[in-house]
Amino acid sequence: MNIVHYSDIDGKHFEGDSVQGITGRVLIGEDDGAPNFVMRLFEVEPGGYSPQHSHDWEHEIFIHQGEGAVFFEGKSYPVRAGSAIFVPPNKEHQIRNTGDGTLTFLCLIPAGPPEL
Amino acid sequence: MNIVHYSDIDGKHFEGDSVQGITGRVLIGEDDGAPNFVMRLFEVEPGGYSPQHSHDWEHEIFIHQGEGAVFFEGKSYPVRAGSAIFVPPNKEHQIRNTGDGTLTFLCLIPAGPPEL
Repeated sequence: MNIVHYSDIDGKHFEGDSVQGITGRVLIGEDDGAPNFVMRLFEVEPGGYSPQHSHDWEHEIFIHQGEGAVFFEGKSYPVRAGSAIFVPPNKEHQIRNTGDGTLTFLCLIPAGPPEL
Repeated sequence: MNIVHYSDIDGKHFEGDSVQGITGRVLIGEDDGAPNFVMRLFEVEPGGYSPQHSHDWEHEIFIHQGEGAVFFEGKSYPVRAGSAIFVPPNKEHQIRNTGDGTLTFLCLIPAGPPEL
């Protein structure tokens, strides 16, 4: 068994043309012996956003803190702490922080793609 | 895509000899088209606990709210909001609420076993 608090893991910061104000961490993955899926946590600064992209694996997302919007197929949907979002494979998506505080969410993916 | 807030899902209550004060919900599963793994959320009342059991699939757990203890191989480990726990297959485990408020955690499993 492994137990870790996310604040004890060094974050990887993402900043660029398509992504702003995102810090990511792998909480549970291949290094823990997890055989099937990977738990990552992302923090998004106010005004920040993830890339608008698609890929051939799904996301299972849970909003831990804050509020934001999920962009999907041309529309934007509000989410808040306690919201769960299933993004099917090959569908363009993006998450934005629309609140005043940090938006913190889990995003789980199947094993195989890059973990972060 | 599906978006749901956990509070909008009817919970299934568990109470018995081996489990106390637990309410479970499937947030993302087969009905959503999730192909690989299942996101469930559990609320544990103060003093409540999950069964002390083992099974041949893993858990990936994230504490959303509250504080508790994970029992694993004869020892008890404290956890709190923001903790992630990987429980390998075939290892006996249990979660207890050791705080004054509700303990709320995600527990993800691979597709295949009963979702709840």
